[in-house]
Amino acid sequence: MSEVHVSRRARLRDRCAASTAHDGPADAVLVSSPANVRYLTGRAAPGSVLLLGPDGHDTLVSAPGEGPANGAHPADDLRELGVEAPGSPAARGEAGTDGDAAVAAARLAERGGARALAVEEHHLTVARHRALTAAAPSLHLADLGPAVEQQRVVKDEEEISALRVAAEITDQALGELLESILVGRTERHLALELERRLIDHGAEGAAFPTSVATGPNAGLPGHRPTDRRVEEGDFLSVRLGARYRGYRCQIGRTFVIGTAPEAWQIELYDLVFAAQRAAREALEPGTECQEVDRAARQVLTAAGHGTALGESTGHGVGLEIGEDPRLSPGAVGKLDACVPVTVEPGVHLPGRGGVRIDDTLVVRPQADGGPELLTITTKELLAL
Amino acid sequence: MSEVHVSRRARLRDRCAASTAHDGPADAVLVSSPANVRYLTGRAAPGSVLLLGPDGHDTLVSAPGEGPANGAHPADDLRELGVEAPGSPAARGEAGTDGDAAVAAARLAERGGARALAVEEHHLTVARHRALTAAAPSLHLADLGPAVEQQRVVKDEEEISALRVAAEITDQALGELLESILVGRTERHLALELERRLIDHGAEGAAFPTSVATGPNAGLPGHRPTDRRVEEGDFLSVRLGARYRGYRCQIGRTFVIGTAPEAWQIELYDLVFAAQRAAREALEPGTECQEVDRAARQVLTAAGHGTALGESTGHGVGLEIGEDPRLSPGAVGKLDACVPVTVEPGVHLPGRGGVRIDDTLVVRPQADGGPELLTITTKELLAL
Repeated sequence: MSEVHVSRRARLRDRCAASTAHDGPADAVLVSSPANVRYLTGRAAPGSVLLLGPDGHDTLVSAPGEGPANGAHPADDLRELGVEAPGSPAARGEAGTDGDAAVAAARLAERGGARALAVEEHHLTVARHRALTAAAPSLHLADLGPAVEQQRVVKDEEEISALRVAAEITDQALGELLESILVGRTERHLALELERRLIDHGAEGAAFPTSVATGPNAGLPGHRPTDRRVEEGDFLSVRLGARYRGYRCQIGRTFVIGTAPEAWQIELYDLVFAAQRAAREALEPGTECQEVDRAARQVLTAAGHGTALGESTGHGVGLEIGEDPRLSPGAVGKLDACVPVTVEPGVHLPGRGGVRIDDTLVVRPQADGGPELLTITTKELLAL
Repeated sequence: MSEVHVSRRARLRDRCAASTAHDGPADAVLVSSPANVRYLTGRAAPGSVLLLGPDGHDTLVSAPGEGPANGAHPADDLRELGVEAPGSPAARGEAGTDGDAAVAAARLAERGGARALAVEEHHLTVARHRALTAAAPSLHLADLGPAVEQQRVVKDEEEISALRVAAEITDQALGELLESILVGRTERHLALELERRLIDHGAEGAAFPTSVATGPNAGLPGHRPTDRRVEEGDFLSVRLGARYRGYRCQIGRTFVIGTAPEAWQIELYDLVFAAQRAAREALEPGTECQEVDRAARQVLTAAGHGTALGESTGHGVGLEIGEDPRLSPGAVGKLDACVPVTVEPGVHLPGRGGVRIDDTLVVRPQADGGPELLTITTKELLAL
């Protein structure tokens, strides 16, 4: 694993050296976003930051109390530095410790002779940025921008393997739930049970808070589970995902409770299914991201449900659940091979409920068989 | 509940009007830290921000996709505003949506005639701060500083009740674990089981990642559970806490596995227990925070274990697990009544293991019986 991280850091250095940084060239780089630090070092160390120093050496600066090196990773050429406990009663928690490690890293960069330090302005707070300026006044602070996030978009096969395992775990957890009695149980109870099953099957945890929505709640995009109980005739929509080795996947399915779905339920389900399939089939290297969104959107719009659709119909996944690319009308850019994305259109009819169908897929060229579906739970409309 | 929030917001307004804001007076306030938004509105709405407008009206601006009002709270005088989906492919997740709601709130403040807007510079990112300036160029952005965090230090009885329930849940979860067979099970497995039991007993979730440490790992402050199995003769240290209505408590206990502890284990346990008791007994309104820390520290230092101690021996708890005050050598300020804090000294001997004992208590005057212990699981050295 460590070679992978060395090479990821080398790519980031090359990019900065080539002055492609957002805000001019920089001879040192400070990475503070936790997912980015993990991507570049393999370490999941809360509050730690990574310094790519002017001398060509990389240093992981740990937050106070975290201590250097957790020993779980083989040594690579990454130096490790623990930060002493601060003398001041700084706020605890992520923000406070982040700041301390970042300040220590800025001092280190200054002592190492750096003139310009690129920082992640989309992650550093205003207060922390000011603390860096105060601690290392000779350093010019530039903006790294989303350079690491962009580097993370295309995944290597090891990352895709982790996502594949995450998807397997997710399918298993969902499959077991479908075999159990659902009527009479609350959304909240079902969501907890799904999260337990994810862990039983080897997940580190849930990739995001599990959503279970019944009856009139079904199909609501950001629904948080309530104490509403599953009833006969309900639509039931669930959205969950496992986190495995840091990688997060997402599945969403909608079912009907009882013997047979009503006509309007079948009609709505078939419509969302058609929209989701259209977007899945549009996934191909070179396709504009907004084209994928449009493929789903036009199916729903033609049926009069365009306004019921959310702002996007999918997004990248990886170390975070919402990564680039974004599949939305305003999205810029094209898909690449080896980019894992969700495809997740849905329609919600106020007062009646609705349907969501979410899959995680990896973009692959047609020559390799087209998009690789990671979440393989059936998309038939099951009556449970 | 809503009256409580109205009055909390009125106090914040008064404070800002009295020019006690960190960076000059401001006629509008933007609160973006999630715990602060929750404290002032009762709403736990990811990415939402609160605007105290220049017209005396308060508005909760929801993140895109969240929609206004979750309906779980009675109406108070809080306006609710949903933000439209952004046209640009902004990063998803907390950061992105936060930014959008904050930008909408800044525009609203500007349209309402505000001249200076106080923002939380310790929470807003540099990029977001710049977006606010661009969106509302006539506004002067001032720094609110940790005004809301300071307001949150002293808790009302409703908040303390929530903490009391969180502590009860935590004691129950820990008590059940102690009745089960432990030898042969992994740290990771035990931690998962504790987290499940927290939820079984009514917690919304864990207050922080549960730590279970065995043998040579026992007593390590930030230990993350590994696949090491519990063995006869081990020290076993656990640290866990429930989240209930947003409020988070913390307990830590250390046990010995097997029939009888060894002499060095008893000696070390008694020492940490004495240090922890000294700090608990020092909790009183008016006492300097650093005095509480010193009470624990001097017991350990006298026994030659001063260097094994971490940077602090306790901290406030509430909507976040690490709040002010901090009980450390550099801490400034005195304790007030109705401030819940942890007292959590520990000693770790490399290669052998160690002891941690953490309690959550509420500072109360002697006339009211002194500090109120919320986490009541026994602190005898149990052999399990």
